[in-house]
Amino acid sequence: MNDYSLTSWVEVPPDSDFPIQNLPFGVFRYGQRGPSACSIIGDQIIDLVALHAEGLLPVPGVNRAVLEQPYLNDFIALGKSTANAVRAALTEVLKSEAGTSVRETVTKCLVPVQQAEMCLPVKVGDYTDFYSSKEHATNVGSMFRDPANALLPNWLHLPVGYHGRASSIVVSGTPVKRPYGQTMPEGATSPQYGPSRLLDFELEMGFIIGKPNQLGTQITTAEAEEHIFGLVLFNDWSARDIQKWEYVPLGPFLGKSFASTISPWIVMLEALDPFRVAGPVQTPGVLPYLQYEGKKNYDINLEVAIQTPTGAEVTVCRSNSKYLYWNMCQQLAHHTVNGCNMNVGDLCASGTISGPDPSSYGSMLELTWRGTKPIQMPDGSERKFLNDGDTVVLRGYALRHGVRIGFGEASGQVVA
Amino acid sequence: MNDYSLTSWVEVPPDSDFPIQNLPFGVFRYGQRGPSACSIIGDQIIDLVALHAEGLLPVPGVNRAVLEQPYLNDFIALGKSTANAVRAALTEVLKSEAGTSVRETVTKCLVPVQQAEMCLPVKVGDYTDFYSSKEHATNVGSMFRDPANALLPNWLHLPVGYHGRASSIVVSGTPVKRPYGQTMPEGATSPQYGPSRLLDFELEMGFIIGKPNQLGTQITTAEAEEHIFGLVLFNDWSARDIQKWEYVPLGPFLGKSFASTISPWIVMLEALDPFRVAGPVQTPGVLPYLQYEGKKNYDINLEVAIQTPTGAEVTVCRSNSKYLYWNMCQQLAHHTVNGCNMNVGDLCASGTISGPDPSSYGSMLELTWRGTKPIQMPDGSERKFLNDGDTVVLRGYALRHGVRIGFGEASGQVVA
Repeated sequence: MNDYSLTSWVEVPPDSDFPIQNLPFGVFRYGQRGPSACSIIGDQIIDLVALHAEGLLPVPGVNRAVLEQPYLNDFIALGKSTANAVRAALTEVLKSEAGTSVRETVTKCLVPVQQAEMCLPVKVGDYTDFYSSKEHATNVGSMFRDPANALLPNWLHLPVGYHGRASSIVVSGTPVKRPYGQTMPEGATSPQYGPSRLLDFELEMGFIIGKPNQLGTQITTAEAEEHIFGLVLFNDWSARDIQKWEYVPLGPFLGKSFASTISPWIVMLEALDPFRVAGPVQTPGVLPYLQYEGKKNYDINLEVAIQTPTGAEVTVCRSNSKYLYWNMCQQLAHHTVNGCNMNVGDLCASGTISGPDPSSYGSMLELTWRGTKPIQMPDGSERKFLNDGDTVVLRGYALRHGVRIGFGEASGQVVA
Repeated sequence: MNDYSLTSWVEVPPDSDFPIQNLPFGVFRYGQRGPSACSIIGDQIIDLVALHAEGLLPVPGVNRAVLEQPYLNDFIALGKSTANAVRAALTEVLKSEAGTSVRETVTKCLVPVQQAEMCLPVKVGDYTDFYSSKEHATNVGSMFRDPANALLPNWLHLPVGYHGRASSIVVSGTPVKRPYGQTMPEGATSPQYGPSRLLDFELEMGFIIGKPNQLGTQITTAEAEEHIFGLVLFNDWSARDIQKWEYVPLGPFLGKSFASTISPWIVMLEALDPFRVAGPVQTPGVLPYLQYEGKKNYDINLEVAIQTPTGAEVTVCRSNSKYLYWNMCQQLAHHTVNGCNMNVGDLCASGTISGPDPSSYGSMLELTWRGTKPIQMPDGSERKFLNDGDTVVLRGYALRHGVRIGFGEASGQVVA
């Protein structure tokens, strides 16, 4: 499946995120069909229930019951080898070498993505948010604490993380209501109630757990990839004024829990294999349980665009997941070092992925440096934080030898 | 059901937590029966599936399918009026006035609690932990920060809370493995890995959400009780050394997520109605969205006992839920002020419930004042924190006019 030369008889536009080498999984609804499991090639959703009914998904364990569900959890629980066998079966029938009768049958199972509704792909049991970009942590520490001691003492020794709210995770396209809450504005003597005035995005990626561990057991860095099904884009919307007032001493809460947006497609780790790169050198060295071998970062280009209500779009951030200081294997090893159990469908997000250059900062907080450097919009307006009507679009793709493995979008419009 | 004079033909020992006025809900397993919904009177589990099959639960919406499930979520989702109608139906057949043939039929549906296995009563989607005891927050702030400024600036203005780990919530009786993790011992220059040396309990109560709200909507303090199905005891086990090193700036994580223990019985809010009391006066006054009318605290006696491996038991803490500064209605109004959605089965815990007297402190951290005042055990040993083999037992009950509405136990043994 990582054969760069492979092509499909289904038309795949040159800038598509979804060539035959990708074949991610999602859940769709279209007329009487769904919600049920699907994949995508080019602009065509592949209805896996229909394909299975046609006898073209001959993979042990895969049946109509497991595909025809509103979430992928049971499908994912079949194991990564099963999901990759499904991808292999899809490759067989989608590759250019496929015969005419196969093509005709598969064509009946395709749905134009523009006509379908994409649903939340997994039921997230628990959601954890890490804080694994050194640049982001340094930026935030510099702004709110001390530039000379921007990183707190633990930061270089463990992947700092916290539990987030799972219930308010929504799929791309869902409007995001500007949250109300309690804040203590600069100079005020008593707290105030009202809509957040400092609404922000956070550019993140998340991984979906594909294999559980029992409570009381650990997942090592070497075992971690077996437990990671795939990746999504993740916008950890943040109300900075609410967050600032509430977060001591127990961490972010209502400044985050009003909504988090994920992309509808889960890109399997195996599709991203050609894009592995070495992560940053970790100095000081980490404890043995956090050490790892091999390339565990991924060279995935990430972008954030803001669309104004008038339709103007500006890309405000270009970053890359390769910048992450702590990789997913370390995150998972740390998360389970105390015996914490992970379930299929659990989500672990990276934290804001900022790069070294100011144009790669992954939040408005950093891009505008607390609002001191507003962003100019093409329609002449400027932004310190997000306005009602703004749509934030996260995009991500890996590219090599002309093959682009992408994630689609994680977008959401801010509404009053 | 709040008739103090009502008695049952089923024997209820005088110190039982489960008179006919209580009738909480749980999930049990016994031989071929269950896991399925049950209630309890005295020492007898009431098998609701069996009772329904006998035609003695004539409540609209209640059928075998909703009762014969491993969790109560679907039953709870029928609504509090349905659940209270089940309690009323149980009262009818359990009261002393019930006829002989009814008694004979009901008797077939009883299972001695000692012979049954109690299961986790709900599938917890999201779990939130508050920090609502002023005495606890003051004690912790005094120990770790500054006795003169023990409470952080936000504490008196909002019920501080954070998201906890739902997957590791276990039912009473489940052993708790001492967690491994990363710590920075006093005086060390680099972090260390190993089993937690400062394992603690936290005496809490939790409420279970019985009615959801849509994402983007708020629950007011006046509406909150409609959304609260009932209460449980909750031990928020804490590894103080792991917590201390990890918790800045994003809050507790692995110091908590290895296990939390809940009691198997959900006591409905309506059973606790006679035990309402006024909460502490809140000064300064709170924002309108946190104001409330009526008595929203509950006079529930709480105790923590430690049993050593040799069987000796000592009650180390006697507290009361009435001490909580922030009540459940305020917690829920705050939690949803930003539009965060609550689902049926979600759990909100109170935070450690400490009272004014040192004997009412709800954690070892406070009881031993960071280990400086060890607790003497009856077997001659002493405890600064918990030893392997120790069993921590939380108990709780409300008592008035000779009627005791109790929670049973939330217990767990620490294992290496």
